[in-house]
Amino acid sequence: MQDTPQVVVLRLGHRPGRDERMTTHVGLTARALGADRLVLANDAASRAETVVDITDTFGGPFDVETTNQPMARLKRWEGTIVHLTMYGLPVQDVESEIRERHRDGDPLLVVVGAEKVPWDVYDAAEYNVGVTNQPHSEVASLAVFLDHLFEGTELDRQWEDAQKRVIPQAEGKQVEEQ
Amino acid sequence: MQDTPQVVVLRLGHRPGRDERMTTHVGLTARALGADRLVLANDAASRAETVVDITDTFGGPFDVETTNQPMARLKRWEGTIVHLTMYGLPVQDVESEIRERHRDGDPLLVVVGAEKVPWDVYDAAEYNVGVTNQPHSEVASLAVFLDHLFEGTELDRQWEDAQKRVIPQAEGKQVEEQ
Repeated sequence: MQDTPQVVVLRLGHRPGRDERMTTHVGLTARALGADRLVLANDAASRAETVVDITDTFGGPFDVETTNQPMARLKRWEGTIVHLTMYGLPVQDVESEIRERHRDGDPLLVVVGAEKVPWDVYDAAEYNVGVTNQPHSEVASLAVFLDHLFEGTELDRQWEDAQKRVIPQAEGKQVEEQ
Repeated sequence: MQDTPQVVVLRLGHRPGRDERMTTHVGLTARALGADRLVLANDAASRAETVVDITDTFGGPFDVETTNQPMARLKRWEGTIVHLTMYGLPVQDVESEIRERHRDGDPLLVVVGAEKVPWDVYDAAEYNVGVTNQPHSEVASLAVFLDHLFEGTELDRQWEDAQKRVIPQAEGKQVEEQ
């Protein structure tokens, strides 16, 4: 059986000070909801350690990488590029096409910007996709996009090499240390 | 035809300075993904204006309210209470039961905390629900929860009294002013 092609999340446009927690949440959401790898562009690199620490504690595999040349990365991507933006085509209209390409073997790069995204990105993306055409949150958009892409199967994922594992509870908290 | 019962999102545990943007994103996600009302507890009230401004510009109906007594609000809620937490029961295991209760007429209160949530909240909630049992983002959890609750129908929502409307584009940005 062939491995499922990679899903990579690229975080662009991080503004120091302002976007620290948003970028962390983008990275942790990418990991939790089934992406294989996070690429943090430019100043977003400051958040790499936090995401690596969570992966060390709660398991993987999940890769974290930083780059100072996100546009080069976009341009040499061999596979599908999706840019999440409130100006794009409704996710419900394009998701089955994107899912099919991914299942047929195309690696998928999901670009998540902060407030200002260069026009080049709209150009480089084969799909500009809106999770609603309303202003809300890149974290919410990424979460819904990944959940639709994987059709909820990512929620059942098992994690390898976890030091800690949360045991689901109707009430309270239970954490198992390995 | 009876109206669908309300879905209200309650934001708890906001820490001034640290949580400003997260709370804004919680509020905007609640609006964009189909909730009817946002309740901002204590210091989270500082973000009310931003969410009201977006509603004025991009349409409603969507209500924003603040409270200094979130626990009283929880305790007198007549309907279902869901608390989103990584320690809770997997969303995929409980969502159909919650959806059914909502469709049968139960208003739904969705509680979204920041990092520390008082034990009382776990007690008061009928459902403690995890969108994965991994650490990621309350914004991502809220987004996936609402999208599952409404089974994606919220993505087709029409907005009333919008001054601006985004026209979905394969590339670029188009905004219609009313």
